[in-house]
Amino acid sequence: MAHSEAFDLVIRNARCVTAADTFDADIGIRNGRIAALGERLGAGHQEIDAEGRYVLPGGVDGHCHLDQPMSDGSVMADDFLSGTRSAACGGTTTVIPFACQIKGHSLREAVEDYHRRAANKACVDYAFHLIVSDPTPQVLQEELPALIREGYTSFKIYMTYDDLKLSDREILDVLSVARAEGAMVMIHAENSDCIAWLTERLIAAGKTAPQYHAASRPMLVEREATHRAIALAELVDVPILIVHVSGREAVEQIQWAQAHGLQVFAETCPQYLFLTADDLGLSEHDHHGAKCICSPPPRDKANQQVIWDGLQSGSFAVFSSDHAPFRFDDPQGKFVAGKDAAFNQIPNGIPGLETRLALLFSAGVLGGRLDIHDFVALTSSNVAKMYGLYPRKGSIAIGADADLVIWDTDVDIEIRNEKLHHAVDYTPYEGQRVKAWPRTTLLRGEVLAQQGEFLGAAGQGHYQPCGLPTPAKPRVRSA
Amino acid sequence: MAHSEAFDLVIRNARCVTAADTFDADIGIRNGRIAALGERLGAGHQEIDAEGRYVLPGGVDGHCHLDQPMSDGSVMADDFLSGTRSAACGGTTTVIPFACQIKGHSLREAVEDYHRRAANKACVDYAFHLIVSDPTPQVLQEELPALIREGYTSFKIYMTYDDLKLSDREILDVLSVARAEGAMVMIHAENSDCIAWLTERLIAAGKTAPQYHAASRPMLVEREATHRAIALAELVDVPILIVHVSGREAVEQIQWAQAHGLQVFAETCPQYLFLTADDLGLSEHDHHGAKCICSPPPRDKANQQVIWDGLQSGSFAVFSSDHAPFRFDDPQGKFVAGKDAAFNQIPNGIPGLETRLALLFSAGVLGGRLDIHDFVALTSSNVAKMYGLYPRKGSIAIGADADLVIWDTDVDIEIRNEKLHHAVDYTPYEGQRVKAWPRTTLLRGEVLAQQGEFLGAAGQGHYQPCGLPTPAKPRVRSA
Amino acid sequence: MAHSEAFDLVIRNARCVTAADTFDADIGIRNGRIAALGERLGAGHQEIDAEGRYVLPGGVDGHCHLDQPMSDGSVMADDFLSGTRSAACGGTTTVIPFACQIKGHSLREAVEDYHRRAANKACVDYAFHLIVSDPTPQVLQEELPALIREGYTSFKIYMTYDDLKLSDREILDVLSVARAEGAMVMIHAENSDCIAWLTERLIAAGKTAPQYHAASRPMLVEREATHRAIALAELVDVPILIVHVSGREAVEQIQWAQAHGLQVFAETCPQYLFLTADDLGLSEHDHHGAKCICSPPPRDKANQQVIWDGLQSGSFAVFSSDHAPFRFDDPQGKFVAGKDAAFNQIPNGIPGLETRLALLFSAGVLGGRLDIHDFVALTSSNVAKMYGLYPRKGSIAIGADADLVIWDTDVDIEIRNEKLHHAVDYTPYEGQRVKAWPRTTLLRGEVLAQQGEFLGAAGQGHYQPCGLPTPAKPRVRSA
Amino acid sequence: MAHSEAFDLVIRNARCVTAADTFDADIGIRNGRIAALGERLGAGHQEIDAEGRYVLPGGVDGHCHLDQPMSDGSVMADDFLSGTRSAACGGTTTVIPFACQIKGHSLREAVEDYHRRAANKACVDYAFHLIVSDPTPQVLQEELPALIREGYTSFKIYMTYDDLKLSDREILDVLSVARAEGAMVMIHAENSDCIAWLTERLIAAGKTAPQYHAASRPMLVEREATHRAIALAELVDVPILIVHVSGREAVEQIQWAQAHGLQVFAETCPQYLFLTADDLGLSEHDHHGAKCICSPPPRDKANQQVIWDGLQSGSFAVFSSDHAPFRFDDPQGKFVAGKDAAFNQIPNGIPGLETRLALLFSAGVLGGRLDIHDFVALTSSNVAKMYGLYPRKGSIAIGADADLVIWDTDVDIEIRNEKLHHAVDYTPYEGQRVKAWPRTTLLRGEVLAQQGEFLGAAGQGHYQPCGLPTPAKPRVRSA
Repeated sequence: MAHSEAFDLVIRNARCVTAADTFDADIGIRNGRIAALGERLGAGHQEIDAEGRYVLPGGVDGHCHLDQPMSDGSVMADDFLSGTRSAACGGTTTVIPFACQIKGHSLREAVEDYHRRAANKACVDYAFHLIVSDPTPQVLQEELPALIREGYTSFKIYMTYDDLKLSDREILDVLSVARAEGAMVMIHAENSDCIAWLTERLIAAGKTAPQYHAASRPMLVEREATHRAIALAELVDVPILIVHVSGREAVEQIQWAQAHGLQVFAETCPQYLFLTADDLGLSEHDHHGAKCICSPPPRDKANQQVIWDGLQSGSFAVFSSDHAPFRFDDPQGKFVAGKDAAFNQIPNGIPGLETRLALLFSAGVLGGRLDIHDFVALTSSNVAKMYGLYPRKGSIAIGADADLVIWDTDVDIEIRNEKLHHAVDYTPYEGQRVKAWPRTTLLRGEVLAQQGEFLGAAGQGHYQPCGLPTPAKPRVRSA
Repeated sequence: MAHSEAFDLVIRNARCVTAADTFDADIGIRNGRIAALGERLGAGHQEIDAEGRYVLPGGVDGHCHLDQPMSDGSVMADDFLSGTRSAACGGTTTVIPFACQIKGHSLREAVEDYHRRAANKACVDYAFHLIVSDPTPQVLQEELPALIREGYTSFKIYMTYDDLKLSDREILDVLSVARAEGAMVMIHAENSDCIAWLTERLIAAGKTAPQYHAASRPMLVEREATHRAIALAELVDVPILIVHVSGREAVEQIQWAQAHGLQVFAETCPQYLFLTADDLGLSEHDHHGAKCICSPPPRDKANQQVIWDGLQSGSFAVFSSDHAPFRFDDPQGKFVAGKDAAFNQIPNGIPGLETRLALLFSAGVLGGRLDIHDFVALTSSNVAKMYGLYPRKGSIAIGADADLVIWDTDVDIEIRNEKLHHAVDYTPYEGQRVKAWPRTTLLRGEVLAQQGEFLGAAGQGHYQPCGLPTPAKPRVRSA
Repeated sequence: MAHSEAFDLVIRNARCVTAADTFDADIGIRNGRIAALGERLGAGHQEIDAEGRYVLPGGVDGHCHLDQPMSDGSVMADDFLSGTRSAACGGTTTVIPFACQIKGHSLREAVEDYHRRAANKACVDYAFHLIVSDPTPQVLQEELPALIREGYTSFKIYMTYDDLKLSDREILDVLSVARAEGAMVMIHAENSDCIAWLTERLIAAGKTAPQYHAASRPMLVEREATHRAIALAELVDVPILIVHVSGREAVEQIQWAQAHGLQVFAETCPQYLFLTADDLGLSEHDHHGAKCICSPPPRDKANQQVIWDGLQSGSFAVFSSDHAPFRFDDPQGKFVAGKDAAFNQIPNGIPGLETRLALLFSAGVLGGRLDIHDFVALTSSNVAKMYGLYPRKGSIAIGADADLVIWDTDVDIEIRNEKLHHAVDYTPYEGQRVKAWPRTTLLRGEVLAQQGEFLGAAGQGHYQPCGLPTPAKPRVRSA
Repeated sequence: MAHSEAFDLVIRNARCVTAADTFDADIGIRNGRIAALGERLGAGHQEIDAEGRYVLPGGVDGHCHLDQPMSDGSVMADDFLSGTRSAACGGTTTVIPFACQIKGHSLREAVEDYHRRAANKACVDYAFHLIVSDPTPQVLQEELPALIREGYTSFKIYMTYDDLKLSDREILDVLSVARAEGAMVMIHAENSDCIAWLTERLIAAGKTAPQYHAASRPMLVEREATHRAIALAELVDVPILIVHVSGREAVEQIQWAQAHGLQVFAETCPQYLFLTADDLGLSEHDHHGAKCICSPPPRDKANQQVIWDGLQSGSFAVFSSDHAPFRFDDPQGKFVAGKDAAFNQIPNGIPGLETRLALLFSAGVLGGRLDIHDFVALTSSNVAKMYGLYPRKGSIAIGADADLVIWDTDVDIEIRNEKLHHAVDYTPYEGQRVKAWPRTTLLRGEVLAQQGEFLGAAGQGHYQPCGLPTPAKPRVRSA
């Protein structure tokens, strides 16, 4: 009888945590999936004793950039191999990077190219978001609907960056497709014209150092675009997800929308909890600030608190890395435009795939700022649901992939880049201390990483086509 | 070996739903608890085939009144027998009624009396909230801390009702005890003086019919007290739970608090989704409106939508019945003060224990207004966590009590009081239709009710001492 | 001695009202200006006995369109003669229409052309706003600064209408000029792309009747643009004035800005107090709704109340007509695109110069909704200050032009288009009743109109170059 | 002929400023009233050449305490002589102190006593507010209505202070009388129970120094009571005025009310613009902080900015001193309870009658933070209107009392207590610099003070019975 078959693997004495529950159980794994949870389960061909440690669903990083072609000559430091290796060591078992349409080209082309980049390299499972940068009638009427039905059910659009940004009208058209097909739209919300206007003035005034990156994108630039994105989604009557929200003014817009019954979801990232604008440099001569150039920029301590409050109160649905890896000391990296490049010529992005979970677990869960179930929801379950990977990914439940992380929660680790597994030559969190780190990462029942050592293999990760987002289904409103 | 022992009961082919997850599994039950979840579990002495139906954690009703002594001569229609029988048939397996201190008497006395009322009668498990109506130094310094440590970890306080209401100062003192001990305080937030002032004017104007009950407690009366309760909790720095929130103005206060990082939780009830002030009567001569007299009163359609939006967006943590059973056609019921009693002499409260879950499942989950996981959270998991019954109660997880409800979700049932099991002679929802109803209710692995038939026994329910509320633990704020 | 000279005119027994004060006085006028106010002033060559009637400053209409060239083939019904004649009879003694730049042409050209249109026709005094539709470097760096210094100190920009709208970047550039020069920028705030997207869908669905004009420009379209305009002004740190605000969602944005210390001013118009979307027609076949097509469209009763509240609480600084006169039964009027023209081919605008003051005085001041001093501020003083005509215009004070209106406030008049003096063949207020109407209108001490009869002459009105706006001066903020 | 009679006094070349207008004129005064304003008025028996200086209406201080009996043994330093002498030298020509009912006594008694205290002493005109501390049926039904009709048309109620505070029910009853009679109610909004609870804890912890006064009355204590006061007024549907608003959280409540169409007025005071909590002392041993003990306490710089923003945006209607004079080095003053008195035994209040206008004119008008017309409105016109003294007081208009202040606006004065004319031995503004000071103060056409020298006489001030408040008339709401 089926129940008497031995499991492939049993994890004993796990303190299992899902987005709702904590329970002590053995986890029985068969064919890479969770086949049973129970007290004193039968034998497994292999067994791991979790010894009462927390066992959580593997992280799903819903916002990261790997080996993405750049238009400015720079090259991302991480491809699918180094990036996912880094993810695995940090407790993330699924990543969803972006197949980015190049203006004038088709989306399909971008998808095919991106599959080639991922194949035989990825060490964790992966799905693709699309980036829609050129919503031609062909894209809107044919490609996008077809791709959604094939399993590319989420896409990101930009309100800034010259090579990516869409007009309001284009956004409405893209949102309409999302509504018709049930897809999820992620929006980078910053007002492009404001940034350009400020940047010109700063550059003209000789204010070119990295520290002026923050001045070129003040909070109101994000607030305005967030309000506008919400209005456009309200008009089309479709859910959206505002990515990388950085502080109070944007959070207030999102809370307004949520309180008014709109399906507006929000994401934040470690940089808005653990960095401030000071990390962009404190003087004209501080080029190290380039390491922390990302958009929106980190704000200040008061805004960090607002982000913590938003995580706690449920304003945010997901917590992602927005990993965008550029080497600091590399002519194809942060200084692709030269050592004296102005802030606006420096590629945007910071690495964070490997540190995302430990930073939040340590300061959040262990620091008393975040319920552990909310941690699971923000870093795994909600991400899987939002992007159509649930219930395969995102939980410890019967039938789910056995993507699991056994946590050490009694350590005291100083983050140092040399210990990390990405191909970037710095981490913005250098020197910060954490009290938790993934002890063992399992992907579909196989150990990928153990106490900071990568034990997996290139190609071990599988592509995961996505279903329709769970929270994207139309909701009835009474009125 | 343990794993080879037969289960006492196996529920096969269950579409299990928790506050976070949906998964298909067999549920193995041993000694009244969930011992295993898995694909094709081993045999049970008994087996139930759920045939792919939804199986949810049994409901926990965190706000209901049973056999509670009244000061006005009225008698509650439901004692622990009829009330919990009704609960069981409606899918609720744990109730938390109130041991109510009488002014001038001790809390301990109320608790002991209430245990006597429950013993050998309760058909579902039960815990007690306390009602603190007389916070003497003795109560504050000795009784209350002692009772909390004994398992009475939540208590309700009133800002209105002459025999129950506390002054702001008394509220601060009670909240201080809650903070020191980690208990949860539920607050009935209406401004007593405003109600008294309005009531006097209405009565003096001859406006005594039930319909004027709503006019005597307008939304601002609730908004003011909600704001005040939040301010008092903010001062003491302690979580609170605002009970039976009825509409926009109170919701806005709660959302303000939550957005500002305060631990303010909120409850709403079926009457604010399915009734309006019109149900209090449309004319001077409509005495049937007395059936729907409860406080705060039902509002209007626009406020119903606000409550739905709040359920969906997470503003509410729990959904309770506030079952307060008084017979309509009974001299000890609604008309204890005589057939011509003015609205303010009619006992407040409506029955709802049995209909709570079906109403919300039907209009909410099946109607597309509420995620099924949120349904479980609002009606069971969050309630168990809020009042210290988790993880024994509130989920489908290893080690939890096997309190389960198998749902029929393809029915079309007209609610009629004659089908219900309470001892009240009416239901305010008479004639409303629902598309879902509990098919089988199990308490600790035993079938309590089946398709509307009660199969349990008086005394089958056990008293459950409560641990400290999970969300009540102090949270660290950075600033 | 100077004081013994006779006045040219003395108005006796005037109940004078300014934006702050009410006082009984004789008004002594010499050389068209107010030379003295006092009890029992000396003799005038002419005398008018006001008999205790209210005497108010002549209205200043800061938003009206006269003889403005149109790009769609339509022709405005009112030129400077009929328009200002109508204004005079309605108690308005100064108008500020728009010299509108045509894309590809210079601003200077527009100004010169507009002077030609006004000369020898205007019956009341007039100044010009500019409309900047093509902010080329030449316009921004030379023309606009030069024109501001010459007395064209306010200009309007559009966020919608294809032939007029500016991009965010262009708005920032125009606002920068305003900041540098101290000019006032009026902004028409509606999101152009949203309107275009909705309009296409409506037209495609065959929904072309006038009533769909409202559906093509819902409140959120105005809310979004209002928020964006505020953000752009906040970035540049310059005052702006949001014109023709129609309802709650836009008002809330403006109140947010004002509460946060931003110099955001707002205007509303009679159509948002006295019309609703129903006036656009109640059926597909109702072409009369074209009469009320204006943008933003009138909303509903609840939004009317919000506008009244905003007038009372000070959220609005000015109250204008937005007179934009197109004949209904005229191939150059509302149906320039043919009798079956879709709503989006019908020229936007309604007449209102003559009825503006009486409607607000009657429903507002006499109706108990508006303080009479606020009436003067909104319709005259603030307008004069906002656009640099104060203290010449806008008050009853020594040295000011003797532009005065003696009011009848005990009448009961039905508004009928046949009684009005504009050249439009309808009024949207046909049949509405007012309890007040200007009895005598004086321009610089000369009677222009008397009890609905025009007594002035073409060319009697003089061009008034504007100084810098009073509220536009930079304000110091402590932080 | 009347116009040829000589004036008693002519002020030549005045740059007159009202709450709405600025104009250059001669001011002709006859019988203590303004008889004419004009260019080159005829001769006066006396003449003063203002030489183009600003001439403003004399200040009306709507909130000050003089010779008010205290229940704690302390004695106010200023009686009607020293207090009004100080007022005169600071440019204030009318004061409205409080006839305070003592619990158990009648209001009438308080009024009669207060008249005795004022008679033959007051140097500026005066009216009385009432303080209602004991609203017995007799007071509510007879005394208060009668007194209102006799000219005591405004009264203050307290939500804190044991000897003064009213319950919510009492507040509702008092507001009902105000509504019936058209009177204005001023409310001191702080939550008494919260203050008592905090104070006990601070005292018990040995935190007794003046600096803990601020900790005993945090912002939320004021926010809560402000919200409650608004709700009570909303229920009764009557205007109220919230006095001495200190910072953001209270301002937000007031702005919410105003935006929702409620007639909620607000007052602030110099201490909330020019002092912070630091002025209460920076250490346990700093007893000088007692000088700045007032309630609500001064807050911080950020809250000062909020108050400035509120003044500018119109959230505040009046700006008063809340002069409450207790000597520092005096056993009947701040240390009536002994040199080591805890903060809660120190009489609340700071002096400010003489410095109110110069501080606001200098930092506000000259500092670019406040329009000069708003200055006049806040310090004079609105106060006169709010309390029924308009049009006799509060403006420069025909028929008004010739209460005028000629200002020096090109001075640089260091505030030093030795230069002031009150009987208090300190000023909290010692050492602050102002750029403006009243040069000449006239009361009903007679010079009261000249460049800091008092030239008036005891008894020169007259009692002014009040009419009904202008803004208190019921407003019609459409909905």
